Amino acid sequence: MATGTINVSVDNIFPLIKKFLYSDHEIFLRELVSNATDATLKLKHLTNVGDAKVDYGNPIIEVKVDKDAKTLHIIDQGLGMTAEEVEKYINQVAFSGAEEFLDKYKDSAKDSGIIGHFGLGFYSAFMVADKVEIITKSYKDEPAAHWTCDGSPEFTLVDADKTDRGTEIILHIAEDSTEFLEDHRITELLNKYNKFMPIPIKFGTKEETLPLPEDAKEDAKPETKTVDNIINNPNPAWTKQPTDLEDKDYKEFYRELYPMQFEEPLFNIHLNVDYPFNLTGILYFPKMTNDMNIQKDRIQLYQNQVFVTDNVEGIVPEFLTMLRGVIDSPDIPLNVSRSYLQADGAVKKISSYITRKVADKLKSLFNSNREDFEKKWDDIKIVIEYGMLSEDKFFEKADAFALYPTVDGTYYTYEELYNKIKANQTDKDDKLVILYASNKDEQHSYIEAAKAKGYEVLLLDSPIVSHLMQKLETSKENISFARVDADHIDNLIKKDDTKISKLSDEEKTKLEELLKEVVPSEKFMVQLETMDSDATPFMITQPEFMRRMKEMQQTGGGGMFGMGNMPEMYNLVVNTNSDLISEIMNTKTRKKQERLINQSLDLARLSQGLLKGEELTNFIKRSYEMIK
Amino acid sequence: MATGTINVSVDNIFPLIKKFLYSDHEIFLRELVSNATDATLKLKHLTNVGDAKVDYGNPIIEVKVDKDAKTLHIIDQGLGMTAEEVEKYINQVAFSGAEEFLDKYKDSAKDSGIIGHFGLGFYSAFMVADKVEIITKSYKDEPAAHWTCDGSPEFTLVDADKTDRGTEIILHIAEDSTEFLEDHRITELLNKYNKFMPIPIKFGTKEETLPLPEDAKEDAKPETKTVDNIINNPNPAWTKQPTDLEDKDYKEFYRELYPMQFEEPLFNIHLNVDYPFNLTGILYFPKMTNDMNIQKDRIQLYQNQVFVTDNVEGIVPEFLTMLRGVIDSPDIPLNVSRSYLQADGAVKKISSYITRKVADKLKSLFNSNREDFEKKWDDIKIVIEYGMLSEDKFFEKADAFALYPTVDGTYYTYEELYNKIKANQTDKDDKLVILYASNKDEQHSYIEAAKAKGYEVLLLDSPIVSHLMQKLETSKENISFARVDADHIDNLIKKDDTKISKLSDEEKTKLEELLKEVVPSEKFMVQLETMDSDATPFMITQPEFMRRMKEMQQTGGGGMFGMGNMPEMYNLVVNTNSDLISEIMNTKTRKKQERLINQSLDLARLSQGLLKGEELTNFIKRSYEMIK
Repeated sequence: MATGTINVSVDNIFPLIKKFLYSDHEIFLRELVSNATDATLKLKHLTNVGDAKVDYGNPIIEVKVDKDAKTLHIIDQGLGMTAEEVEKYINQVAFSGAEEFLDKYKDSAKDSGIIGHFGLGFYSAFMVADKVEIITKSYKDEPAAHWTCDGSPEFTLVDADKTDRGTEIILHIAEDSTEFLEDHRITELLNKYNKFMPIPIKFGTKEETLPLPEDAKEDAKPETKTVDNIINNPNPAWTKQPTDLEDKDYKEFYRELYPMQFEEPLFNIHLNVDYPFNLTGILYFPKMTNDMNIQKDRIQLYQNQVFVTDNVEGIVPEFLTMLRGVIDSPDIPLNVSRSYLQADGAVKKISSYITRKVADKLKSLFNSNREDFEKKWDDIKIVIEYGMLSEDKFFEKADAFALYPTVDGTYYTYEELYNKIKANQTDKDDKLVILYASNKDEQHSYIEAAKAKGYEVLLLDSPIVSHLMQKLETSKENISFARVDADHIDNLIKKDDTKISKLSDEEKTKLEELLKEVVPSEKFMVQLETMDSDATPFMITQPEFMRRMKEMQQTGGGGMFGMGNMPEMYNLVVNTNSDLISEIMNTKTRKKQERLINQSLDLARLSQGLLKGEELTNFIKRSYEMIK
Repeated sequence: MATGTINVSVDNIFPLIKKFLYSDHEIFLRELVSNATDATLKLKHLTNVGDAKVDYGNPIIEVKVDKDAKTLHIIDQGLGMTAEEVEKYINQVAFSGAEEFLDKYKDSAKDSGIIGHFGLGFYSAFMVADKVEIITKSYKDEPAAHWTCDGSPEFTLVDADKTDRGTEIILHIAEDSTEFLEDHRITELLNKYNKFMPIPIKFGTKEETLPLPEDAKEDAKPETKTVDNIINNPNPAWTKQPTDLEDKDYKEFYRELYPMQFEEPLFNIHLNVDYPFNLTGILYFPKMTNDMNIQKDRIQLYQNQVFVTDNVEGIVPEFLTMLRGVIDSPDIPLNVSRSYLQADGAVKKISSYITRKVADKLKSLFNSNREDFEKKWDDIKIVIEYGMLSEDKFFEKADAFALYPTVDGTYYTYEELYNKIKANQTDKDDKLVILYASNKDEQHSYIEAAKAKGYEVLLLDSPIVSHLMQKLETSKENISFARVDADHIDNLIKKDDTKISKLSDEEKTKLEELLKEVVPSEKFMVQLETMDSDATPFMITQPEFMRRMKEMQQTGGGGMFGMGNMPEMYNLVVNTNSDLISEIMNTKTRKKQERLINQSLDLARLSQGLLKGEELTNFIKRSYEMIK
């Protein structure tokens, strides 16, 4: 039996790091700026605990492009390294200085915000550079060091004459990576990854207009001054305490996050927990507009203020991925598969914590300013309804704030609605019928008919509302939803009273035969009804069940298989008590009868939006003739 | 000055490999099956060139789960390794055997399909396993070897008693990765990554029904047999020559690729080029349906039959990402940033090769069976129109096959259309006016009015068609598009002939004043026109320019800034020669005049789809009364 140690050959691993370390080369800049940040935060910590007797000052990190020399520079004013430390930390691939540091200063460094946890970040420089230099001067009283490596495992290390504390990394950008010598590209990367890192990052300069002195003459021109162009906000809102922030601070931060968003957010939810996991962040309910940025401006995930990804699938419950904002947590494992993420206990807890916080916030908004909440309902209902459908916990909590608006703009909670309509809208079988419309314009005449009976009509127009109704029908007791055009209103909520018919049974049979000859049976089922004489004579309805099943299929899932492809089915409800029917019955010539029926059918179809194209053109022509 | 060599410490790098090698842990299985495939293909090559005097046979790769032992096994019948080779290839992280092999057999091995190009794949096993064993027997006459490593860099290597040739990898799955002991998960992974790899992969067994013998009795039951469950197709269609494939083979392969797709593809494009880059593949034009799989079933990118990704952004021109199918190319660099990919010369060539092939195929389909091409137009037009907008090369080529359908179902090429309408639809300023409708039903009466003049009306209803018209108007000479409801037809194509007015100028002024008092001016601009007496008396139009700008803004980009939010503007075109106008002018009472104008306005609005809600309900009520 032989035993041994696996051998990692530098000659083999080095080309791999270049090719393979990250699937996205642009990451190198995030890694180097993170290192510079760590070096600065470490110095801060050492001066705080008294281990470094130097002046911490107001250090910044500078990023610089030298297009002529084809170099990119990252310069910090952190603790620097001695030659010995360069040997130790740099020449040993994957020997993490940050980990060693955190280990040594375990307790005191806990909240220092130091990022690094593996020592590979520096080597990502070789993904874009064919030569890398380090010039570094330690805060300790030792000479500066200059390390150079051309991408082969060989390096040189000499003294340098740098006198100011800190580290400068110089990347000699490779031919295939010259994009990283372009100012706009570097600006883009710093904005993407480093926008909220805790040490100020300078990239170039800018002109700033100075305020005029108080005694300035009227025609005095303001002077300008060249100042550092700081690209980041080292103290983003989510790192602060909610009590230290006002509404305008949250709105300003929203604009920082999404500079291309002109709409203000509706409201925000500040996340702030450190047990049993560490999570901070701010979520925003956006105003739902049709613009494309809904897809682009997504929730961003950070770890210690370093941007990681804007794909939070698996971490944030699906129904909340429509929100915007920031989540920052060092506790979310990243280099694992999504399926593992979803099964991970800690991540599950984070996800349900977020759900709970969102529900609590919605409840408190509803309680504290109901009027405002109602105004926002149209913008937030998709998220809430989707949440009610997909998370049972949220469904329970949502009873306290989910709203059911009527066509007249009254907003009820479920309980309020129930109490309001219970007496009038319970049918003879003790079932409570909730009437709704999906479109105030298209179903106007049907809504009017329901309102004439004193019924409330809800306006439910979200794409997923048919699924939600299905869920409510099964979870609440003895209720059902019916769209106002699903049948004649007296059939939708059946009461015990019976109408007296003007027509005898014999006349009814005659009428039915006549109608069946004129009305195309493949399109309409004729349904005779004894209604008020002034109710509409002809009316087209579409049965609730079939229509809803089709809608559910169209919005993905549910419903019954195959129903999505069934043809549309309509009923033609004929009011046998109407004057028009009497007239049709009394008309002598068959031709005139047909004309009356056809014109009435056209009007009924118009009311249901079914008269189109040539038929509509003909109807209009006929009508012009009739008014002449 | 000091020089030295960077030192990679195994103790540091090993945990990193586990954590960091791939962002998605599930990749390990792809890597191990790729290694097994390579080992088999290498043996094949050696027997082919006579360097291995063994029987190649019909080797397969077996994947096996042992739930009780918590192990996953990958077993091949390839060339195996001697203890010495294990030392050399496995114990040296990142020492790639495949690269060495390809180097040695440079020319003869070129088309062997061997995959590996870095030696890290094997180590990905440690992402999911806390102990890994290799039991391997070389094709050479040497004892088998048994290597074991528990994830620390220490390993043991002993003799084994394995007698059959090949390698077995045993993964002792770690606690946090038990998902990889589930059959369904392994099936999912093999299907995702290995479905078209070149060596048969067995995962479990299945029952197969045997055919009945010819002399079987009538009530004989067919026997079943347990056979290997082979999950892959080692010879997928794209690796074959187009001449060896029939239409049904392409359709079968489509079903293999997208088992959840029930629609057949419209046609396919076989890609096959080996200079100046190597690319094979099959692209399909899918039937455009509304289902969600459009997003999910995307073009898949392979390298040597190993699945890499279904995100081909940057490789395939954007307008073709709506297609489906497979691209296989070892020449596409993968571990680079998207922006680099787009700037890369080789990738640019691949992208424009694909564009050219697609254009050529469309042209040949059009030429060989125009009728069939026209039938498919509705499904493919989005892709073609988007391509015409986004790629100038494609725009030029598309002139030969892009179609312009009329409302009556005739399909013209641009040239045919031009020749057909040139004489009749050129206006007095020598501009050719191309009339179109966006909806046959909604614009029916306007279409009829244009057809009455002998004009052709196109049906252009794609969401991006307003952008395409803009492009055609600037690239073709002296043409303009006008929707049939943009104005009265005589104004859309102005000829020299003038109509004689029934009304004097004085009467016109009187009429205009009357109309302005009744018609709400914030909604409609009154426009008096001298038209045929039997043309429609009232008509609502919407000027082309504003409407199109608004549409372009809504479909993203173009148009003029801010126009998307302008209110809808309509003109009310009044035919001063119509009988109805004469009647209105002659009506004595003001009240009756108003009633006539209002009813006519309602009919005009109905024709343009503008009469809705309460106004429509009232109109219908009024009309019921009028027919009584």
